[in-house]
Amino acid sequence: MAKKQKTFRPKARIPRGFKDRLGPELIAEREMLARVSAVYEAHGFDPLETPAFEFTDALGKFLPDVDRPNAGVFSLQDDDDQWMSLRYDLTAPLARFVAEHYDALPKPFRRYQVGPVWRNEKPGPGRFRQFTQCDADTVGAPAPHADAECVVMLSEAMEAAGLAREDYRVRINDRNVLTGLLETIGIDEARDAQTKLGVLRAMDKLDRLGEAGVAALLGEGRKDESGDYTEGAKLDDASIARVMGFMGATAETNAATCDALSDLIGSSEAGAKGVETLSAMAAQLAALGLDDAGAKIDLSVIRGLEYYTGPVFEAELAFDLKDAKGRPVQIGSVASGGRYDGLVARFKGVEVPAVGISVGVSRLLAALELQGAAAASRGPVVVLALEKDQMASYQAMATDLRAAGIRAEVYLGGSNFAKQLKYADKRAAPLAIIQGEDERAKGEVTIKDLVLGAELSREIEDNAEWREGRQAQTTVKRGALVEAVRKALDRG
Amino acid sequence: MAKKQKTFRPKARIPRGFKDRLGPELIAEREMLARVSAVYEAHGFDPLETPAFEFTDALGKFLPDVDRPNAGVFSLQDDDDQWMSLRYDLTAPLARFVAEHYDALPKPFRRYQVGPVWRNEKPGPGRFRQFTQCDADTVGAPAPHADAECVVMLSEAMEAAGLAREDYRVRINDRNVLTGLLETIGIDEARDAQTKLGVLRAMDKLDRLGEAGVAALLGEGRKDESGDYTEGAKLDDASIARVMGFMGATAETNAATCDALSDLIGSSEAGAKGVETLSAMAAQLAALGLDDAGAKIDLSVIRGLEYYTGPVFEAELAFDLKDAKGRPVQIGSVASGGRYDGLVARFKGVEVPAVGISVGVSRLLAALELQGAAAASRGPVVVLALEKDQMASYQAMATDLRAAGIRAEVYLGGSNFAKQLKYADKRAAPLAIIQGEDERAKGEVTIKDLVLGAELSREIEDNAEWREGRQAQTTVKRGALVEAVRKALDRG
Repeated sequence: MAKKQKTFRPKARIPRGFKDRLGPELIAEREMLARVSAVYEAHGFDPLETPAFEFTDALGKFLPDVDRPNAGVFSLQDDDDQWMSLRYDLTAPLARFVAEHYDALPKPFRRYQVGPVWRNEKPGPGRFRQFTQCDADTVGAPAPHADAECVVMLSEAMEAAGLAREDYRVRINDRNVLTGLLETIGIDEARDAQTKLGVLRAMDKLDRLGEAGVAALLGEGRKDESGDYTEGAKLDDASIARVMGFMGATAETNAATCDALSDLIGSSEAGAKGVETLSAMAAQLAALGLDDAGAKIDLSVIRGLEYYTGPVFEAELAFDLKDAKGRPVQIGSVASGGRYDGLVARFKGVEVPAVGISVGVSRLLAALELQGAAAASRGPVVVLALEKDQMASYQAMATDLRAAGIRAEVYLGGSNFAKQLKYADKRAAPLAIIQGEDERAKGEVTIKDLVLGAELSREIEDNAEWREGRQAQTTVKRGALVEAVRKALDRG
Repeated sequence: MAKKQKTFRPKARIPRGFKDRLGPELIAEREMLARVSAVYEAHGFDPLETPAFEFTDALGKFLPDVDRPNAGVFSLQDDDDQWMSLRYDLTAPLARFVAEHYDALPKPFRRYQVGPVWRNEKPGPGRFRQFTQCDADTVGAPAPHADAECVVMLSEAMEAAGLAREDYRVRINDRNVLTGLLETIGIDEARDAQTKLGVLRAMDKLDRLGEAGVAALLGEGRKDESGDYTEGAKLDDASIARVMGFMGATAETNAATCDALSDLIGSSEAGAKGVETLSAMAAQLAALGLDDAGAKIDLSVIRGLEYYTGPVFEAELAFDLKDAKGRPVQIGSVASGGRYDGLVARFKGVEVPAVGISVGVSRLLAALELQGAAAASRGPVVVLALEKDQMASYQAMATDLRAAGIRAEVYLGGSNFAKQLKYADKRAAPLAIIQGEDERAKGEVTIKDLVLGAELSREIEDNAEWREGRQAQTTVKRGALVEAVRKALDRG
């Protein structure tokens, strides 16, 4: 391999929109995913791993055309000319898996999956073309019990990840309630698709635009501060009043919200169904310990409406995040889910009830990091290698430490002392173990606290005093090494 | 999405050479990888995750030609016309990463990586186009200390995975020793590449063909039982004798092997270097607790010789595996590694010393499964849902069990009793929790042991006696549920 390339030196670089991840970030994510997975498993969900590739037609994308073979997904043609694509989420492979093995699977089928997905999209700040998803779904169980369970898992997943109960809010809504609203103002979803989308998009902007802004978008339209004009949904005044009344119907208690909803949209069949489901879910959730505060019906929750067919839910942070410079950070929802009974229909032609949740892995991790709640990790204890012929003795020290459950390694790059300390620093090593000739003669080792040392060096003005650095190190007998290291680590 | 596809029903199927994995197999692999990763981390290695895609030129493959764009790797052209490929191993991305960030990295740089790799090859039995690798590498440290550490980690990884010390053998060799042998019989590796390969391929067949077979392949050639003729390496008799002598030089102790090697190939510069390295490694390994039996110099170890530049090592099983039908199963080496100082050269033009190990994930897992040592997993306890209006009460039982650390779920698919038991069976549930109307009136629950029940049903002839099935179930007060379940699980 190397020989053939002698004249050509490729530039070492990574394709745009992708990233390498090393050490602490990866460990924090792994710990979080393990704890969330444990929640899924505790609820009886089994792990599933599907391959990165699916047939393009099975993914629900049309056959890529020749000019632009990669719209949205990464696609390529197999040897037999069939188009394959890298999965863009974990739900499409689930649909394929369930349809393929429908008769053999236990029903309801409950699985969770954690893994990378790929999007062939324009990358941007914080937007990558490969990222991790972490989903749990129940296929084959109708509302509301499986849905209530998903909400409970959503809540437990947030706490397993490291958030306190008061740090997040779970909000629920139901697709049929929105359909009911649309029906009561005379919008047919199939016939008036454009108007429907306009109404829902306007409703989705309550947080940002306030009531007046939403009302304008429901009517003629709205000019924003930059002067851009957005065409409105052209509802009449009575309909606008109904929609605004609907959005204002979110009450303090779930029971009160359901009562208000009954009055507003109970006359529509879909609406009545939605209210009934929400009411049953709220009762279930209360019995499971999630009261009105723990899982609140919120009629402004509008999520992926082309997709969901029943209850929808999301978890959002209940505290304001600030970055290192004190500027507010918008994270959005950190987990979400809902019912999508059309899952397997494209394969089998029949509806199979399905409901699931998805944790927003990178968002949640970013939130935990900003909050300082992400799993911390530290570098290994580094045993310096000062005398070339004493390697076995250094290795024995590291072995003793590892046997006691302490991450440890011997420096393997040469005998320069300063270089070795610099290495230990770069590795974020908490401690360096030092045994020079003198220490060896006395049967001793020195334990240098690199974290404390760095702190002291910041505090101490007098350079000479720092060079002594006695505060940050201690010398013990070789036989007391493990105990002394453990003590130093516990302190750190 | 679903609407657009109304007329077209794709077949739910998986591309050939790929597979889905569910539950127990996945859990066993995850546990194994977590334990092996813990070994790597204990030794000071940090996890690295590189993306699935690399630029094709950075992977060391030539630009795919237009007619056959996917020789060996899965490749596609990005929007900017650059070719990208899915990684085919974890070493090529490591080389790219190290070359890209060389100045910023601590040196030696120690990382491990676990993840899928993709090969665009013809799939076959047990050969998949996506599989998991689990590597640890030290970049920037010369032999022999980093190499000895890799051998120690190899050994520790085997035991972390679940093998006992007597269940595997670690064998080591050195690329330079083989170069030395070739030099002493007058073969120049660059000039006589074809002869070299013939000699090494012949040597690699000692296990299968025995001494006479290897000698034939070193000389004129050999006809096998099927009548197929393999052209030999055409060595003269003296050279054949030297090669056979070399292979016979593997002694009981590493020291004796090194002594014999000195005599055989010490006159070659490469040979002398190889002997020195092996001798130093053996001493290091002995000091670290791996004696002649724990890591044996074996001159018949011939691994990826185009690739490795120094010590090579591998772990193989020390026991015979049989499949369910008692037939012997050949697994080959379950982990291997070596030194490859050319790693970064294709990017930077200079050699950077590197050594690493790779666990053969699927092979090792297969061995553990055949040995019955793979991590076991069982289904959740299933709480049956017999009365529609008692769901909250069933959910509370499952919640109580989960709070005690027991996997549990409520059946969510309807109220048919037989169907629910069948479901519990399919889920490999150890227990079913049953509370019918009568039990509820008495404040009791019944715990049905499905594993014991299945055993009994095999033993019991009398169907009526089985239907009673009292041996396999017990009824307790609702308040004693958790304790009784725990007791039943501990028994199982």
